[in-house]
Order: sequence, then structure tokens, then C-alpha cells
Amino acid sequence: MAPSASPATATTVYTPVTIKSTKFKHPLDPLTPDEINAVSLAIRLYTTANTPIKAVRFITCTLVPPPKRAVLAALGIPLTPGAQPEAPTPIVRKAESDFLDVVNGGTFNAILSLDDGTWNVDTCGLVAEGSEPQISPEELAFCEHVVRRDATVQALAREVGVEPHQIYADGWAIGYDDRFPKHTRLQQAFVFARYSEHENLYAHPLDFVVVIDSLAEKVIQIDFPPTYKRTEDGSVEVGCLEYRAVPIVRRLFHRVKTRAHSTPCPADPTHKPRDDIKPLHVLQPEGVSFKMDGNVLEWQKWKMHIGFSHREGIALSTITYNDDGEIRPVMYRLSLAEMVVPYGAPEFPHPRKFAFRQLSLGCDCLGQIHYLPGAYVTHSGTPFIIKNAICIHEEDAGVLWKHTDYRPGGRHQTVRSRRLVVSMVCTLANYEYIWNYHFYQDGNIEIEIRLTGILQVYVAAQDEPNPYGTTIAPSINAHNHQHLFSVRVDPMVDGLYNSVVESDIVPLSAPTGSKENFAGNGFVVKDKVLKSQVQDGARDFDWARERRWRITNQARTHQSSGRDASYAIMMKGGVLPLMAHTDSWVARRASFAHKTLWVVRDKEGADGSRMWPSGKYVPQTREEPEDSVGRWVKDGNGSIENEDIVLYLTVGTTHIPRPEDWPVMPVEHVNLMFKPNNFFTKNPSMDVPGTNDPMSKPAFNGANGANGSNGACCSH
Amino acid sequence: MAPSASPATATTVYTPVTIKSTKFKHPLDPLTPDEINAVSLAIRLYTTANTPIKAVRFITCTLVPPPKRAVLAALGIPLTPGAQPEAPTPIVRKAESDFLDVVNGGTFNAILSLDDGTWNVDTCGLVAEGSEPQISPEELAFCEHVVRRDATVQALAREVGVEPHQIYADGWAIGYDDRFPKHTRLQQAFVFARYSEHENLYAHPLDFVVVIDSLAEKVIQIDFPPTYKRTEDGSVEVGCLEYRAVPIVRRLFHRVKTRAHSTPCPADPTHKPRDDIKPLHVLQPEGVSFKMDGNVLEWQKWKMHIGFSHREGIALSTITYNDDGEIRPVMYRLSLAEMVVPYGAPEFPHPRKFAFRQLSLGCDCLGQIHYLPGAYVTHSGTPFIIKNAICIHEEDAGVLWKHTDYRPGGRHQTVRSRRLVVSMVCTLANYEYIWNYHFYQDGNIEIEIRLTGILQVYVAAQDEPNPYGTTIAPSINAHNHQHLFSVRVDPMVDGLYNSVVESDIVPLSAPTGSKENFAGNGFVVKDKVLKSQVQDGARDFDWARERRWRITNQARTHQSSGRDASYAIMMKGGVLPLMAHTDSWVARRASFAHKTLWVVRDKEGADGSRMWPSGKYVPQTREEPEDSVGRWVKDGNGSIENEDIVLYLTVGTTHIPRPEDWPVMPVEHVNLMFKPNNFFTKNPSMDVPGTNDPMSKPAFNGANGANGSNGACCSH
Ligand SMILES: [Co+2]
Ligand SMILES: [Co+2]
Repeated sequence: MAPSASPATATTVYTPVTIKSTKFKHPLDPLTPDEINAVSLAIRLYTTANTPIKAVRFITCTLVPPPKRAVLAALGIPLTPGAQPEAPTPIVRKAESDFLDVVNGGTFNAILSLDDGTWNVDTCGLVAEGSEPQISPEELAFCEHVVRRDATVQALAREVGVEPHQIYADGWAIGYDDRFPKHTRLQQAFVFARYSEHENLYAHPLDFVVVIDSLAEKVIQIDFPPTYKRTEDGSVEVGCLEYRAVPIVRRLFHRVKTRAHSTPCPADPTHKPRDDIKPLHVLQPEGVSFKMDGNVLEWQKWKMHIGFSHREGIALSTITYNDDGEIRPVMYRLSLAEMVVPYGAPEFPHPRKFAFRQLSLGCDCLGQIHYLPGAYVTHSGTPFIIKNAICIHEEDAGVLWKHTDYRPGGRHQTVRSRRLVVSMVCTLANYEYIWNYHFYQDGNIEIEIRLTGILQVYVAAQDEPNPYGTTIAPSINAHNHQHLFSVRVDPMVDGLYNSVVESDIVPLSAPTGSKENFAGNGFVVKDKVLKSQVQDGARDFDWARERRWRITNQARTHQSSGRDASYAIMMKGGVLPLMAHTDSWVARRASFAHKTLWVVRDKEGADGSRMWPSGKYVPQTREEPEDSVGRWVKDGNGSIENEDIVLYLTVGTTHIPRPEDWPVMPVEHVNLMFKPNNFFTKNPSMDVPGTNDPMSKPAFNGANGANGSNGACCSH
Repeated sequence: MAPSASPATATTVYTPVTIKSTKFKHPLDPLTPDEINAVSLAIRLYTTANTPIKAVRFITCTLVPPPKRAVLAALGIPLTPGAQPEAPTPIVRKAESDFLDVVNGGTFNAILSLDDGTWNVDTCGLVAEGSEPQISPEELAFCEHVVRRDATVQALAREVGVEPHQIYADGWAIGYDDRFPKHTRLQQAFVFARYSEHENLYAHPLDFVVVIDSLAEKVIQIDFPPTYKRTEDGSVEVGCLEYRAVPIVRRLFHRVKTRAHSTPCPADPTHKPRDDIKPLHVLQPEGVSFKMDGNVLEWQKWKMHIGFSHREGIALSTITYNDDGEIRPVMYRLSLAEMVVPYGAPEFPHPRKFAFRQLSLGCDCLGQIHYLPGAYVTHSGTPFIIKNAICIHEEDAGVLWKHTDYRPGGRHQTVRSRRLVVSMVCTLANYEYIWNYHFYQDGNIEIEIRLTGILQVYVAAQDEPNPYGTTIAPSINAHNHQHLFSVRVDPMVDGLYNSVVESDIVPLSAPTGSKENFAGNGFVVKDKVLKSQVQDGARDFDWARERRWRITNQARTHQSSGRDASYAIMMKGGVLPLMAHTDSWVARRASFAHKTLWVVRDKEGADGSRMWPSGKYVPQTREEPEDSVGRWVKDGNGSIENEDIVLYLTVGTTHIPRPEDWPVMPVEHVNLMFKPNNFFTKNPSMDVPGTNDPMSKPAFNGANGANGSNGACCSH
């Protein structure tokens, strides 16, 4: 039995129902498929009537979230601890779309409002030259077609025995390439050969990289990365580092059709799956412990709105915790705002690989699952519906708390942890990311990112040295890289006005033997409130001081400790230094990546909050965009203390590829935890009942005592 | 329904069968209960016949492991890659015991050999003065009795309304107290009041700390920690910092009988467990995927011996992986060798709280469990048997690897991860530690330490400032502390002769814009082989360089990458700086704690390998013991490259107590992963079959597509 084809993206063909939109259920509900359809139709009518645009390519179509205070008033959540909620005000539903003028080029942005069931265009205009909205899934897919049909590409492939139908290409956004005019919408394509159906094409990388014009739909450049060779003295020399290696000339081509390194195909006679793994099932005979009302989820005192956008994936909003009857706000919004994957090979054109994010979705969970759909706009303006974009289920997470009084006859108490998982899988060409949001009964919120999929690889000559990566399989190079994620946290710890406290843990300066510190063991926590956006808004991690941050509400203190109610951010294992220079292309474009924590005041404009740490329009930016986190912290001399603030946390992993990551990489984890800290009077999970699972039993009949069934270790 | 009493330690009363010992099954099998009995009897006979000792108190009785090469020869494991195993030699079974002369004082160590079914004493002698073996569970328990019956303690308690039967005490080893003669066997006791059965005694700490003489079984000292007060200018002043505060005088006592802060008792009418958590069961209808043969476990290509000792708990030995038919050694032995919990309050006698480890065991796993028993010697020489000391089971661990070809009709492959868990729970007075060893199908080995239980607390006056801790509940102080664990790794990556490579990841020094690094993104891995024990044996973590280490075998290189076969150590999230000064009491006693990695050559002596990083005899040490890791690295100018080496890894967590940790602390995790690195040709889990669990189903009837049952997201 071969590895079975497993659950992946389920989609639905959209049949338009109406162009009239009905009332929304929750002010943060994403645009429905009908609404996407209606919005794009409204834009078409508008552009036809008011602009010279002949043909439109829709790229985005999303909800513009209403102002926070309006949402909180609508939900009855107070702005400050103990206050009354504000009086509800009417909420206008708004949408936003980026679209391209296919004939003349140029990117347009429109903002629309829903009035009495009809979408009206409020504003519509050209955005600044060089502002490219994300590359659409259709563009990514079409790129392969453009590459495959190109005569020069075909000729280059044929020279090494690759027929046109065997040419495959992964279309990426291009990081940065100033050989082309700013207004050209570019894509780069990594080219591979596939010799049979479902074969692992990444096992056969070709030795050139193609650049296409996405609107003209044609190849405009083919680049050949240089090769390395080992010189007689053992050092490594690069064949050519010329940045502008323009002429389209074949440099070298290596056939790497090595079946042994392919993903095992059903047809591969050498592949034999292991047969000694017995089934394991998770059962919930009485059903799940969560409730859904549209996009609103309730589970174990937690309540939240689950949104979806094509750019961020999951967005969790208005997260509250029922603390013994008091509804306590925790987070206004939690999402993954950006990611960048800078590669470490310096030779052209490799530095163009930035891999800003781009999604494609599926799910593979175990147990009793609830799915939420997601929808995004296609080029034509119709919605594309993913039926199972977001997956919700429960998991057992081991012991939650436990204590045994070791005295004879002492009491044992053990409580198991149940967690709620809200998750999503994204395929980014060769790579996959699994985003898990975990909620726990002790008030913890965890973000877990799992990385798997196939490495981005390049071809190598026989015995070619590989100074910036690992030759993971014969003739297959994988470059060193980092995965850097920007987690956006819009907090509302006991209300909308929060501060961030930086804690350093430091030894007492008094020396060992001194009166104040005779044993030398004393240490203290030094707290610093981040006050000024300009001075304190961008923070580095400091390992030697066990630096950590917490989001606090100064208006509410703990009855015993006297400290401010807060949520601490625990991310030590995921914090990493950016390896690229501060003035590197990537550090200039993705400024978020060179600091661990950013704190800025939120500013709600026509298109909502401060959202995108590397700018709203990411592809082909060349410098830090005006509207990005690196600029926001410099924006005025404002306070970030006791204000409506937004945090961006940079976490990730430095990936030095291993042969064991090939052909498919076993998951790697990046974790980030928010923990209540002086927020609850005591451990809020003291009321979770103890577990004594009657279905647990001994592994082997008659052997040893087992949990539950024979009472050997449970009775006392 | 109250939290149910959950599984905990099951024990068996021992009935001696014979004093003759039979043949062992595996050379590393722990001493059986019969062997413990026979060994202690042999020692009694010996001391009666040959020494003036009148009364013996047994403290330890354990296997002396045979030399490594003999074990590997017996198991047919080669010493170097591709070599033949050495010819087996006869293995002599040996045991070791530490015992006390109860009448005259003094610690003795005896080593015995088994010859034709009879244990003979080979050596028996007094160990150096001041070398105290660990405090036994019986001593810890008896300490409470000694404290409770003491007239001065009773008088001090009565003064504040605590009756003698309400006095409870946690006996600890004492860190260091030079007011008493070196040869006095000391314990310190933290004193609490318990007002009703099963009540949380930690909610009522008394304001004094008692020191007892463990052999004389009497109180020899009562200490009163000073109080703090806030002065008029807002600063904090300590009442008395006098180190030798000898007179037994009541300073202050606070009644803190506050039910609200107790663990909820069944009798507590205000306690209402939540009732909205539905049952979740794990089922394995075809049984587990592992096999046990005595203490030898086989699971998914892994094979290992599971040992138990009272001091270390689980010890995993001779861990191998079946790599496509080749049995590849990975670890000779893996264990948790030491831990220390330095507290951060500098005032006497708080710095005496070191909390070196001491075990008490139980288990609370879910699913199909196999238990291994453990046994240790009691004072009288009979064995104490824990039926369920070690727990073995399988868990689902989420996605193992996944890839989706995003092209229309592209293949999806998802494989779920199953992991084997070998685990143990230890109660250390108020605290509990859960040790999990996880084995994965992709070759990973993980050590996870979960911390739960009750904080070590001290009483505080009303509104007393708490500069070195948190007032977690009214009048209850918990001091800042660190949990530092020393993980002992005796590697055999493809054989017994290994090296350690330190990898720093560093940006290319060439500036952005230079020919070699025009985009500024280049970075490389700088490898340094640790060669000299003296110069390279003690290593610091370096966060800015993403420093990591791997254990390599220079005699085997990877066919594609050309790099040495290795296992990498991933522990960034668990690495921490020691907050105590380098010359502090704790840093001098537990030298392991101020470096992240130690690499020493192993030296097998009469009592086995280099085992204990803070010395064999830990209680009451005053300086770095002769036989400890801080000394080993200075031992001769030897090479640690391509030798039989042992590593000690320091991981842990800095714990700033939260009110949410009270009354029982939700688990905190410390993780450490060993990952194959250029060890396997490719991902070794490519043959794990894909999963499509037929028992997964939609959470809500009729709502949305679910995994498996209706095929909505699985069929394609
Ligand atoms: Co990666
Ligand atoms: Co702790």
C-alpha cells in the first residue's frame, strides 16, 4: 500500500445568486461569495462608466473592517476595565479591491460601501507606480504555461533532452530586479522537468531561472546562476558573480533524473511502506465541546470570531475569556501578517528569492472536525470558494496540572489538558506551512507554525562545492535560508488601552559574600514600560537577560501581587537574529525582520488598521515602504503607553537543509505562547474535572498494571 | 463532581524469595527486588564480620553497569561504522551500595560482584567526610515527624494557634550550612499548617525554617527569615540580613488560613467543576505498535533498553535505528543526570533552597499503556517496588510530513506522525516533574520536561513588599527561581567514537553592494570541531550566532553532502543563563549550571562511567566536588575528538511566579530535540503510510465537509 492520497483542498464552484447583499451576521464576517461577486460587479460598472479602463483583472476583494470602537460597542465589550460598553452605532459594511488595468497597466484600489443592499464605490484610484498587489493564484499557475510555451525555454530544455510537455515551473513573485521598469508586473519562475505523472519534479531542477511579464504574459529574461568549483588549494571559487548576466546562453545543464531521490511514486517497485504501525483513533462519543454560531466560536470560557482572508489566512478577533461570569477581553485581533524567507546564497539571481507569502489551502486533522470555508476573488471577479479553509477541532494535550501529596494516604489530583485547535494549511509552491492557533483551559494561547513540504532546490554540477547550502541529494542543492514570520497582535487585555512592559531578569549586582547577597544567588526582574513609539517601538531580544515582554493594562491590578493585569509573550525558542545585513535588500524591504518586537499606535484609516508590516503592496518593493512598521515607529513622537497599540512579533527558524529534509521535509515547529500573567486571581483551570479515562487499558493482556481498567495505579 | 483522584504511584509489598540471584536477561537490567535484597544481606553479613558497624541504614543499591565495550560486544553492536562487533566476553554482574553507620556516623560505599548466584563484597570503605549520599525517601518522610514532635516547634506553632497535629513539614536536603560540623547529616524542613484532611497545606506556611540532624533524628536549629518593609521614600528595606541569626525566637507569625486559596477540596461548597468538557478517548483496536522483551523495547525501527534508577529515573541505553536493514547505533545512554533549582531571594536562610533532585513516582497517561516497574532499597535493605514507575505508550503527534502539488489534479500526500512516549512523573515535595522521552518516525528523539505541582512558598506579612518574588495570593510569597536540568548524553552515533561540532551561523562579512555579496543576504555556517577537553570542553550558548551543536562520527560521511554522519542537538528554547553569580554557592556546587554544553571523555572506573555532573555525593557539598563535570574538563590535556565522549546539556526555565501558578501550577514545558543530520540518506519516514482515518468525522451533523467520512476533502 502506497502512502494514500490524503485530504487536501476541497473547493466549490460558485453559482451567483444575487448581486444584492443581505445583512451581515457579525461586523467582522469576511465578505461572502455573493458579496465578492457583487463588489466586483459594482467595480466593473463603475470603471466602465467613469474610467478609460477596458479590461480589469481582480487581485483582491476583502472586507474593510469597521472601526474597533464600533465593533466593541456592537458586541457590548467595554473599552476599559469595569466600564460600561459604549452605545452601539450603526455599522457600515465596507469592502476594498485591488485590480489591474490589463491593457494599459497600473494598479487601482477601490473602496466601496454597502447601502441598502447595494455596493457603491466610494473611492477608486491609481496607486503609486511600483505598488504591485500580491501575485494571484491564477497568475502563479499561469506562469508555468507562459514558461512552457516559450520558444527559447523550449530550445534550452531540448538541448538536455527535456521535451516541452516535461517543462514545469513554479511561479513566484520576484523579490527585486531593477533591470526592468518599475511598472512592469514581474514574476520569476524556477524550472523543473517532470518525466511522469505525479513525479517529484523538484528532483529535476533545470539550470536557469526565467522572468516573465505577468500582464504581457511573456518571457522577458532568462538568467543562469554561476557555478562553483574547488580550486587546487582547496578553496572554493565562483565561476561568475556578474550581477547583470543578461545574454540567454546555456551555461551548463545536468540531467538529474535520479529516481532514487524522487518522492516514491505508486509505480515505484522499490517503495515498500512500513506495515507495523497500528491504527490509532480519537473518539468523542458525546461530540465536541465547542459551539459555533456562524463564525463565532465558544469553547471552555473562550469566545472569538474566526475570520479568513486570502492574505493572512486565519484571523481571530474579539477574543474574550469568561472569568467567573465577567467577560474579559484579551485580544482584539490575532493573525499572521507577513512572512519572508531570505535565502543565504549571494550569487545572482538567487538573492531574488524572498518568498513573501502566498497561500493555497487544505486540511489533515484527526478526530471530529468542523470546517469553515474561505473565499477569495478570481481575476474575473467571481469568488473562489475553499470549503475547508479553516479547521476546528479539540485535542488532548497531556497533563494540565497535577499534584500528589507524597505523604502516606495523601491525595493525588491530575487534570488532563484539552486544547482547541484552529488551523490551516498553506501550500507555497514547494513548501507547506501549517498554522495552528491553540487555546488552553489555563488561559494560554499558543501559535504554532509547522513547516513541511519540499525544499526549494537548485541543480548542481557533479561534485560542485556548495558553500551556501547543502547538497541534499546527488546534484541537488538546497540553500541555507531563514523563515521569518511577523505575528500581528492587536491586544485588548482588559480593554483597548494597553502598554508593553519589557522584563529583564538580572543578577543582583552586590557580589557574593556581601551583606545584601552573601550567597550570590539573588536576582530580580527589571521592568521597563515602553513609552515612546520613536524610542521604544522597536526592540531586540536579549538572551543573556532572559528578556521577555508582556502586554499590560495599567487600569487593573492584581489583588495579591499588586501588579498590572497582563498577558506575557513567551517566544524564546522562536526568536532569531536576521542573518542578512541591515542594509541588505531583504532587510530594507522586510524591515520587520531585523527586530524581535515592534510596538506602534494603531491608526484606523479608510482601509482599516495598521495591518501590513512590510507594506500593503509587497511585490517589487525596493525600499522600506512608506506604510510599513519600520516607518510607523518613526511616525511622530507619540506615546505607546496606555494607548490602542499593535504589536508585531518576529519569530522563525534558521534552516540549514539536511539530506533528511529530502524529498519531503519532516515537520519543524516554531512556537509562540501568550500566557496570562497577574490576569487571573488564580489558576483559572482549577475547575477542570480530573480525568480517569475508562477506555485507557493495558497495552498487553495480563502484563503490568494499566491506567484505569484494572485500577492498578488508579486506586488508592 | 470534584476533580477525581487520579492514577498515581502503585506499589507492591515485597516478599523475599531467595537470596541467590539468577542470571540476568540483559547486561543493563536494573537490580531486581531479589537482587537488592541479596545485595543488602551480603553487605550486612560483611559488615558484621569485618567492621565495627553496629547498625546500617541503606541509602542506595544499584547496578554497576558493565564496561561499554563488553555490553556492545554482547549485543553485537560494532564500535565503528562498518566494522564487525567485538567478540563477546563474560560479563560480571556488579552492584553498588551507599549506606550509613547509624551509631557512629559516616557514609560507606560497597561494591559487590555476583559469582555463581552469590553476591560478594569486593570493596567496602568509608567515603570522605562530608560526602553525603542523597537523602532517602524515608528520611524525607520522617523529617516531618521529627519536626512535629519537637517541643520548641510545637510551642512556636501554638503561639499562633497551630496544634501539633496540624504541623506539617517538607523535608529537603540542605544546600549548604556551615554552622554545623561537616559530618552531621542535615535536612531542612519547611513548615506548614494543615487544618483538615487533604487540605492544601502550602496555603499556610509558617514563618520559620527548621534544621534537623537526620541520624540523631532531632531538631538542631530554627531560623527566621527576615521581613521586608516599604520605607517612606518608597524603597524597600530588609529587617535583618544577619546570616547567623541563631537564637530561636519568634519574630513574627501570620495566620494565612485562607480557604479561597486552597486547592479545592471535595468538601469545599464553593467549588464547582466545569461540566462542558466532553470525553475524548484514544483507541488502538489492533493494539500498540511496540514490542517489549523484558526491558528491551522495539518500535518503528527503534530499539532500546529501558532502565530505571532511583536517582535518575528513566535511563535509555543502547538506542539503535534499523536503517533499511543496517542496525545503526545512535545513543549509548540517555538520562537526566541532575537538576538544581536555585532560588533568587538573597536573605538567609532562603539561599539554602537548592532543590537538587529527589524522586517519587506516578503516571497519568491516556490510551494503551505499558508499565515498567522500578525498585529501590529501603533503609532496612529490603526493596521498595513501584509497579508503574515507567510508562510506555504511543501518541498521535500531528502531521509528520505533507506535500500538495498545487497544480490542477496534482497529488496530495499527508502522513501523520506517531510517537513513542517513555515517561515518568516525579513528585519533589511540593513540585512535580514529568519526564517524557519521545521517539519519532523521522529519526528525532525528544526530551520533554513538564513542570507542574505547587510552588515553594513562604509566608508574608500583610502588604509586605516582595522584591525577589511574587505575592501570588494574600500573604503567600513565591520566590523567583530557575529550574536547571543536566541531561546526560553518552552518544554512539554510528559507533562509540564521536566528536562534537559547534556550528555558528554568520553573515558574510562582505558588505552589501560588494561583488561577493551584492544583495547583502549571504550567510554561512562556520563549523568548529571541539578538540581539546581543557580548551573546548565547556561551551556557552551564543544566541546572535544561532549556535548549535551536533554529535558526529568522522568515520562516516553522507553520500551526497559529504558531511559527517551526525545527530544535531536543538535546544534553543530551553537554554538559559544562570542568574546566580559564578562564585555563588550554587554555581560552585552545581558547576554544570553555568555552561550550556559540557563535553568530556568518558572514564570507566570501578563504579562505571562518569555519571554525576555535580558529584556522586551532592547534599552538603560546599565547593565543586572533585568528581564533577567542572573538574573533568580540567582533567589532563586529552582530546575529545573522535573519542568515547559524554555530553552534559544544561536546559531549563527561569520561573517568575504568577498568581496563575497557584494553587497548582499549569504545566510548563522545557524541550530538547536530537535530530539526525546527514545521518540518513534521505527522510527516513518516507515509508510511513498515509493516513485517512475512517473514524474521523464532522463535528456537527450535516455541517461542512469533514475529514474522511463524507469524502468532501479527501476524495480526488
Ligand atoms: Co526551510
Ligand atoms: Co518553578
